[in-house]
Amino acid sequence: MDNSLASNNLVQADKQYIWHPFSPFSGLDDVVEITHAKGAVLHSADGKEIIDAISSWWVNLHGHANKEIADAIAKQALQLEHVIFAGFTHKPAVDLAQRLLAQLPWTAGKCFFSDNGSTAVEVALKVALQYWHNQGIEKTNIIALEGAYHGDTFGAMAVGERSPFSAPFNDKLFEVSFLRVPYCTDPLDAQELSELEIDNAVAAFERLVADGKTAAFIFEPLVQGASGMNMYPVSLLEKLMAVCKSNGIIAIADEVMTGFFRTGKLFASQHLQHAFPDILCLSKGITGGFLPLGCTLIEERITQPFRVDDLLKTFFHGHSYTANPLACAAAIASFDLLMGEACQQNIARISNAFKQFKEAFSTHKAFRNTRTLGCIWASDYQTTEETGYFHEARNMLNKYFLDKGLLIRPLGNVLYVLPPYVIADEQLKQVFEAFEGLAISDESMG
Amino acid sequence: MDNSLASNNLVQADKQYIWHPFSPFSGLDDVVEITHAKGAVLHSADGKEIIDAISSWWVNLHGHANKEIADAIAKQALQLEHVIFAGFTHKPAVDLAQRLLAQLPWTAGKCFFSDNGSTAVEVALKVALQYWHNQGIEKTNIIALEGAYHGDTFGAMAVGERSPFSAPFNDKLFEVSFLRVPYCTDPLDAQELSELEIDNAVAAFERLVADGKTAAFIFEPLVQGASGMNMYPVSLLEKLMAVCKSNGIIAIADEVMTGFFRTGKLFASQHLQHAFPDILCLSKGITGGFLPLGCTLIEERITQPFRVDDLLKTFFHGHSYTANPLACAAAIASFDLLMGEACQQNIARISNAFKQFKEAFSTHKAFRNTRTLGCIWASDYQTTEETGYFHEARNMLNKYFLDKGLLIRPLGNVLYVLPPYVIADEQLKQVFEAFEGLAISDESMG
Repeated sequence: MDNSLASNNLVQADKQYIWHPFSPFSGLDDVVEITHAKGAVLHSADGKEIIDAISSWWVNLHGHANKEIADAIAKQALQLEHVIFAGFTHKPAVDLAQRLLAQLPWTAGKCFFSDNGSTAVEVALKVALQYWHNQGIEKTNIIALEGAYHGDTFGAMAVGERSPFSAPFNDKLFEVSFLRVPYCTDPLDAQELSELEIDNAVAAFERLVADGKTAAFIFEPLVQGASGMNMYPVSLLEKLMAVCKSNGIIAIADEVMTGFFRTGKLFASQHLQHAFPDILCLSKGITGGFLPLGCTLIEERITQPFRVDDLLKTFFHGHSYTANPLACAAAIASFDLLMGEACQQNIARISNAFKQFKEAFSTHKAFRNTRTLGCIWASDYQTTEETGYFHEARNMLNKYFLDKGLLIRPLGNVLYVLPPYVIADEQLKQVFEAFEGLAISDESMG
Repeated sequence: MDNSLASNNLVQADKQYIWHPFSPFSGLDDVVEITHAKGAVLHSADGKEIIDAISSWWVNLHGHANKEIADAIAKQALQLEHVIFAGFTHKPAVDLAQRLLAQLPWTAGKCFFSDNGSTAVEVALKVALQYWHNQGIEKTNIIALEGAYHGDTFGAMAVGERSPFSAPFNDKLFEVSFLRVPYCTDPLDAQELSELEIDNAVAAFERLVADGKTAAFIFEPLVQGASGMNMYPVSLLEKLMAVCKSNGIIAIADEVMTGFFRTGKLFASQHLQHAFPDILCLSKGITGGFLPLGCTLIEERITQPFRVDDLLKTFFHGHSYTANPLACAAAIASFDLLMGEACQQNIARISNAFKQFKEAFSTHKAFRNTRTLGCIWASDYQTTEETGYFHEARNMLNKYFLDKGLLIRPLGNVLYVLPPYVIADEQLKQVFEAFEGLAISDESMG
């Protein structure tokens, strides 16, 4: 059979062979074939240019097909593409772990590699549960946040909010306690929410942990991504962390989306002044958007109950490609670009622009709760109907943006921008003009 | 701080920063730093050459740093390193899906990409559960095999045998029924086991499914990897598949280890004459050992209950790097090498050599149950004590082999060889001479 597909047949072949993630088989427009990409721009087979304003599911940092990262991967592939990571090690893994751990306030810590955000979360949960199990202490409860999304494997789903997404699997998910936190539009503004709102959330958390059985608290720090870029205050997270500390609860920050300067700091947890999580889950931006890689950073104290002569207390977890040298090489190249002056200037530029666009959109009748933190901007697009992930507007919105050469993928009625840091001011302007056009057309319809 | 580590300090830095998979913090020899690799040989920082006789956890097919695969990755990285796979597609994903599906006896089917074997399994389980849920049919039980290993995420752990490995997490794993199958040394020999042994296993399976609540049966076809390369007959699997068919149970073959000619055929399921699974889980060898990639192949009929107007019946699963173009490009290059004449000759050569080494080792007193299928060879090394994963012999054996320049990683007392297909006869000879030396030293000690 002929294995080469003519480009114009590729979308048909896609229909024949591919099951796309989070996608129904019908009711949506055809998928768009992307042939190549550069910087913030995707190029489609039919010659269109599309600005990738959401970093291809929040992974891309330095633009598409970045040469430095591509070269690092190409070089590594000819030297050592992979080796089993039990009993063996290699420089890319150690160098990357060192770079990441050097940024944390911990005295010491360890890096456990895996392949994506779901597995980074599963590793964190398993380490936390076994930490207590190894000591013979019966702490097995886990607390998560309402509106949480931590991934799609069973353990990651269990600590995510139960929703229509999880309905077919709910009877197979372990029980978790959920805490509701009040949302805001500026997590750094300690005055935006009332003291009462903050205190109520803290009191609810204290009630959940009162039985002394809580092993771990897992949360997306400051910004909950998939549930709609919902933001909550640093001041609240500080207080929740204090409750964790006084109750010996392992605090797990899922920084899969928030990591790598999305919130203006390398990790969102670094906005905290008086506390820091015990475990950080990383993925997405870690390789600059090139390759799947997960990483769970673990404070040294947590490793103690695993450092015993009893081999049964070993952490028996691993994936074949743990610490894949190509992914580590990409991550190192991306990290060095990220910490460089050019990228830091871009991050500051985008953060400032987003603050201005927040101001500008606060007067639009069609938008509510316009919010921003660092390089994340979001707003609730108001329609007359009740909105949500399944709102009919979604397909209409996708088409509206695509027609304007923009990749925007609303979360329900939440419009957001989470761009590669190389996005130009002019490209950002195009995005927000499209948002504005939407507001105007909605008003003219109303 | 200085981010570059001198090579001789790397093992110390590794101790400081890295938590290795499936590895205790103490009691083992230092990890070995690998600087580069080529073909079947790993090169360590201290100048040693180590034959990778287990394909670095069963992933490598064409040797390390294979130039064709490295070039395919390098080229793709400069063109399109990644794009969100919801709403968009690209040629590497479609070409790979087409190549894989074209090999199956199904009339049609779909490919769902993910990042590793655990996620490929979780996708299969979730699709099977939702298949029934979407139809409003209450089939929620899952049957797996005793001795099963399907990965380390919670869903994958749930369908694996409960063991000391899973003890800290058992209360969080959903319930699964386990079937015991009798083991053999040649899965293709229909006469090796008695009819009674086969019939007993089939009868036990029929009792498990008798309540009509079974959604799916998941199994490693013919060879159970992690539990010790345990083999069971094709004739038995044929009968279990017939029970699945007559009871409407979705048959899920976990081919993560067995795929890509490890058992002498592209997929182990292709040894079946009268049946074929409904879902195949692939990973490991899929990229030739270069990059993490998972893939779940799904027969077209299974997609039917997802093809309805109700958006709530969508399969809501995805990972950021789903269908990563670099991993797909590597997989295509690897697949084309795999189906080429040179590789096919190597596979036949290794299979024949393994049959001869099975014969040769059948007379050694220190070995029992010597078995082989395709490019997998295994034997139980007999010591006087009760053996198992934690047997003290393990560290001794690792050291014994490493001193002889061999990467062999026994599963408890099971010695096995599962090599890259480029391994030379001379290198295979070195492996089996080391096994023989072990037998002699054991006898002289006894």
